[in-house]
Amino acid sequence: MGPGHQADLEDLQNAYTIGQLIAEAGWILLTGGRNEGVMDAASKGAKQANGITVGILPGDSLHAVSAAVDIPIITGMGSARNNINVLSSDLIIACGIGAGTISEIALALKANKKVILLNKNKISESFFTALSPQNIFIAKSPEDAIKVAKDLLLR
Amino acid sequence: MGPGHQADLEDLQNAYTIGQLIAEAGWILLTGGRNEGVMDAASKGAKQANGITVGILPGDSLHAVSAAVDIPIITGMGSARNNINVLSSDLIIACGIGAGTISEIALALKANKKVILLNKNKISESFFTALSPQNIFIAKSPEDAIKVAKDLLLR
Amino acid sequence: MGPGHQADLEDLQNAYTIGQLIAEAGWILLTGGRNEGVMDAASKGAKQANGITVGILPGDSLHAVSAAVDIPIITGMGSARNNINVLSSDLIIACGIGAGTISEIALALKANKKVILLNKNKISESFFTALSPQNIFIAKSPEDAIKVAKDLLLR
Amino acid sequence: MGPGHQADLEDLQNAYTIGQLIAEAGWILLTGGRNEGVMDAASKGAKQANGITVGILPGDSLHAVSAAVDIPIITGMGSARNNINVLSSDLIIACGIGAGTISEIALALKANKKVILLNKNKISESFFTALSPQNIFIAKSPEDAIKVAKDLLLR
Repeated sequence: MGPGHQADLEDLQNAYTIGQLIAEAGWILLTGGRNEGVMDAASKGAKQANGITVGILPGDSLHAVSAAVDIPIITGMGSARNNINVLSSDLIIACGIGAGTISEIALALKANKKVILLNKNKISESFFTALSPQNIFIAKSPEDAIKVAKDLLLR
Repeated sequence: MGPGHQADLEDLQNAYTIGQLIAEAGWILLTGGRNEGVMDAASKGAKQANGITVGILPGDSLHAVSAAVDIPIITGMGSARNNINVLSSDLIIACGIGAGTISEIALALKANKKVILLNKNKISESFFTALSPQNIFIAKSPEDAIKVAKDLLLR
Repeated sequence: MGPGHQADLEDLQNAYTIGQLIAEAGWILLTGGRNEGVMDAASKGAKQANGITVGILPGDSLHAVSAAVDIPIITGMGSARNNINVLSSDLIIACGIGAGTISEIALALKANKKVILLNKNKISESFFTALSPQNIFIAKSPEDAIKVAKDLLLR
Repeated sequence: MGPGHQADLEDLQNAYTIGQLIAEAGWILLTGGRNEGVMDAASKGAKQANGITVGILPGDSLHAVSAAVDIPIITGMGSARNNINVLSSDLIIACGIGAGTISEIALALKANKKVILLNKNKISESFFTALSPQNIFIAKSPEDAIKVAKDLLLR
């Protein structure tokens, strides 16, 4: 999970690498499915590594779907689909920060899911760690995020 | 799409064959994802033929997911997920009939999607054909349903 | 519940009277909230009789809300909101017929709600009565629909 | 908007007063509708002042509805209903903090809605103000929150 058009270059690079590593781990990548930002970059990374990509779209058609999404799910329910994103994920990696991403982190915590944060926003780290110390994990790099994910999934 | 626990033996056999034929056509099968009825039978048929299966679950966890679903989407929104089923499908094959299935046929017509009916309920055929003659198609067998689907998708 | 722009004059007149009678019974009217068809006519009837009107809108703003809706609920989830319409209603009166209305009748039956049909479509009566004889009731007029509703709610 | 069972005494007192002041302003109170925490306290305050209260419930029945809700909307879609809460509100007052409340603040900002924060969590103030300086407002008391709301709605 991560910002759309507001993602910065570092978010995009991190997302691409995370997508690659998810595919290399043999996992399925699930994103918000649109053709911009972290969703798009992560999907492209996963496809470059021959992974499978699922995209949960907010709109009611294939409009604006990422070309790197194999399996588009068309919800027609706008940002309410963010809850489907988190419920459908074994764990969440939040790459970058923005209003939509924050809603996904919070909905994930509400659903008692683990969330790995990868961004430069120190306030977001303090804020969410204070809120849910047992479910928030801080990663320093894409590689670190995947390492934490593996530890959590193999517990 | 089709009934869950109320599916009869013929519905289940038809669904299994439809799942096989969808996989053999190289298409992805999308169902309501639960471990009973038409959803389960179609998913099993598709897996028997090495297909890919997506299941859009009504619950908020993997509880009651079909073992033959590769990619479960967890919506947590009950029957409102029926609209996601139809929006996400290129076309709908309704195998058997029941309240949930009728809602999916109607939501599909509302979204201007093509629907192929395969069941023994003559009233359902008259009812939906009168409602939307250009979007309702009647199939006599699983093989016929797939033939109609191919014609529609290649148009 | 009933059609939007496809409602015919008789549907609109029936809906207006049903709205009036619901208000006179001291009940709250809940509709799909848009400014056309049965939703709009029923809301206007209820307001003419000093009732309270709730509208569950499919869009993500107040665009196209009926001027006769007191309390608009903005869902942003398109036709998936039809399930909210039926879950939030003590019982459903379906006035006229169309794809959206059929989805609401079917979702209501799926949720084990009582549905009163008022329309000239004989096939719809046979179809739904055969599907769920214990939850489908046929009304001959708006007054009859309200009489049946009172009987059901006072059970 | 605000926490359910995790609300503290100050949150509950603030919510009750906010509910009263919303009713006295002639506005309709919209909450998450359950019988605990900020939702319940605000609804009780509004009813004490003869207001109208709407509750958008996550469950698929009236189970756990606040006794102070006049108009329950039953969504059956869990936390995805948080997006309906914010889309249906002219503005949002977030009283207290928690995962669900954070998701509502974030979804509100995503939908370009104004949000007034009333809580003791200084990090939440910095975090959201940095994210969306033009849409986040900090209130020092229930009375201050309503004053800010009036200013915003009369703009």
